[in-house]
Amino acid sequence: MSVTAAKGFTAAGIAAGIKENGTPDLALVVNTGPRRAAAGVFTSNRVKAAPVLWSEQVLRTGELTAVVLNSGGANACTGPQGFQDTHATAEKAAEVLGIGAGEVAVASTGLIGVLLPMDRLLPGIDKAAADLSEHGGEKAAIAIKTTDTVHKTAVVSRDGWTVGGMAKGAGMLAPGLATMLVVLTTDADVAAPDLDKALREATRTTFDRVDSDGCMSTNDTVLLLASGATGLTPAHDDFAEAVREVCDDLGRQLIGDAEGASKEIRVEVVNAATEADAVEVGRSIARNNLLKCAIHGEDPNWGRVLSAIGTTAAAFEPDRLNVAINGVWVCRNGSVGEDRDLVDMRYREVTITADLSAGTESAVIWTNDLTADYVHENSAYSS
Amino acid sequence: MSVTAAKGFTAAGIAAGIKENGTPDLALVVNTGPRRAAAGVFTSNRVKAAPVLWSEQVLRTGELTAVVLNSGGANACTGPQGFQDTHATAEKAAEVLGIGAGEVAVASTGLIGVLLPMDRLLPGIDKAAADLSEHGGEKAAIAIKTTDTVHKTAVVSRDGWTVGGMAKGAGMLAPGLATMLVVLTTDADVAAPDLDKALREATRTTFDRVDSDGCMSTNDTVLLLASGATGLTPAHDDFAEAVREVCDDLGRQLIGDAEGASKEIRVEVVNAATEADAVEVGRSIARNNLLKCAIHGEDPNWGRVLSAIGTTAAAFEPDRLNVAINGVWVCRNGSVGEDRDLVDMRYREVTITADLSAGTESAVIWTNDLTADYVHENSAYSS
Repeated sequence: MSVTAAKGFTAAGIAAGIKENGTPDLALVVNTGPRRAAAGVFTSNRVKAAPVLWSEQVLRTGELTAVVLNSGGANACTGPQGFQDTHATAEKAAEVLGIGAGEVAVASTGLIGVLLPMDRLLPGIDKAAADLSEHGGEKAAIAIKTTDTVHKTAVVSRDGWTVGGMAKGAGMLAPGLATMLVVLTTDADVAAPDLDKALREATRTTFDRVDSDGCMSTNDTVLLLASGATGLTPAHDDFAEAVREVCDDLGRQLIGDAEGASKEIRVEVVNAATEADAVEVGRSIARNNLLKCAIHGEDPNWGRVLSAIGTTAAAFEPDRLNVAINGVWVCRNGSVGEDRDLVDMRYREVTITADLSAGTESAVIWTNDLTADYVHENSAYSS
Repeated sequence: MSVTAAKGFTAAGIAAGIKENGTPDLALVVNTGPRRAAAGVFTSNRVKAAPVLWSEQVLRTGELTAVVLNSGGANACTGPQGFQDTHATAEKAAEVLGIGAGEVAVASTGLIGVLLPMDRLLPGIDKAAADLSEHGGEKAAIAIKTTDTVHKTAVVSRDGWTVGGMAKGAGMLAPGLATMLVVLTTDADVAAPDLDKALREATRTTFDRVDSDGCMSTNDTVLLLASGATGLTPAHDDFAEAVREVCDDLGRQLIGDAEGASKEIRVEVVNAATEADAVEVGRSIARNNLLKCAIHGEDPNWGRVLSAIGTTAAAFEPDRLNVAINGVWVCRNGSVGEDRDLVDMRYREVTITADLSAGTESAVIWTNDLTADYVHENSAYSS
């Protein structure tokens, strides 16, 4: 499963001692070929971690052979030394694997503003390389966890080829991605420009529409590596759809494991004038702290939904807005609708439908509730 | 004090039975003249409560004689019936005071999407009118409280004239104002256009820069009434500065009483290319849930400050950003600065300074931390 579900990949996950508690913290993913095509999508935060700057650079060739990922430190806001450390990480992996440093992407996650313990990280790469296996995908997925309570993997197989992947992320999920590290692999034979196209199409409607707490990370990285090991080249749409399905699956797992969450909230905006309007309204609803608290309290407080819609620039008339919570239209024409006591909010998944009555476009944003556990998890220690 | 500190005003605050717990919920403020000049600033939320729509309309004349304010219900998202109820409220006050309904502003605060109990509100206006007094300002300030733990008033006196006021608000504080009801009064003789100018100048740098939880209300209303009772017309700058001081004082009280807050956070952005950049960066920092949790935990997590700055479009270079927390420059040139253990965060007030190294402009945004108490207060019952 995970990154080794597709043929032509090996992976490992080990404890290098970057995390003080001794749990796994270093993952290595290697494309054994015959192809090395790759694509990546990175955070849109203008403050980018050293590994993001490095990986964006090496991906310009459209090829990657290996990815080193570490938890236990983001290597963000660490200045020139931080960039040198990322470079040294790639050099070390290249040396061990007998390839060039320009074929190695690096991804890091953890606390911002702290240098990585290179005296432990570099020997860890030797250890990981020695442990590389065609069955190492799960171990790799485990090694990239931070506050994640479970590791996340997904696989879609079609007509002889496979797309699989792993993800980590639980806190900073937001548009423009999140402290989300994702590595996807495929054994289809797809050229780099087509990988890039499929990946951008997929992230635009999946990871980019997952918004846990409105906070955007410095480290978001989503990589897609193709080994071509099956020799099969699927039609673009089939391939893109498989990538989208894996991203969607992983994105849902991220929201399902969001810090302190007790509810997963599907915000669907319908009858918008444009898709951009639908996304803007969906994000505004998904980021409204008062609403997220109300959902936590199982309170179908539609007034907070309208209040959030009202802050956007989307096309709508206030007296034509309709809102349903779990299918009950509690707000009709901008005013009181069906009895809010009819709304059943006992279950973990909650659906908020906002009907803008302004067109035919729609979008879905996934978020979660705001809980005292979230506050505790993000105030009790640095992360 | 409060709205009756200035000469030429009477006020009252009584329990009309709008709130089920029997506490005061209806306030009346009357300008006894000789002048009736007035100005107002309202929420920029496109979903506006009925009283906001009404008050914006009556203020077009530049004159007001009375303001009716109620807590216990926002009368927002209540459709045509809600607007009729606001109209009936103004008509009732006009009848009791012997004036026209077009001279009466209405402001409401409380739960969205619920019609007001007019059978209790209208008799409450008789009761309030009978209780009007030159000493009624405190009672009026008490009657507009919702989740406020204390009532808020402020007064500035200069050279024989006075500006005073009252405010309520604790939850929805955000740019474009907040569920903030504010009535300011003055006994200076100032014409409506000058009142309007002074009020807009004042709110732009005070209430508009108070951001408790990023949520913008449907009901924000700030009114300024001038009686001209002293016969004095101060220089515009002197008057505007007095209005700004009262607004600043009330704004600080709002943040000080924000729901569940344990810290008041002064976000100062310096050396920005433009004031707009400084405000955008300040708001982004003030709205970052992860940072607000960290401050609650007394953790000087400057990485979350940089991460928030990085989401803006302001002019800056990541490697020239500096951040101080309570005066300790924990981040220099986008990387690790002074020892974070030097930061003393034991006190209620916390100052975050973000130096963009991009110009000479600056701005201050006030916010508060995110706490489990905030979650509890906004999830345990509808508000």
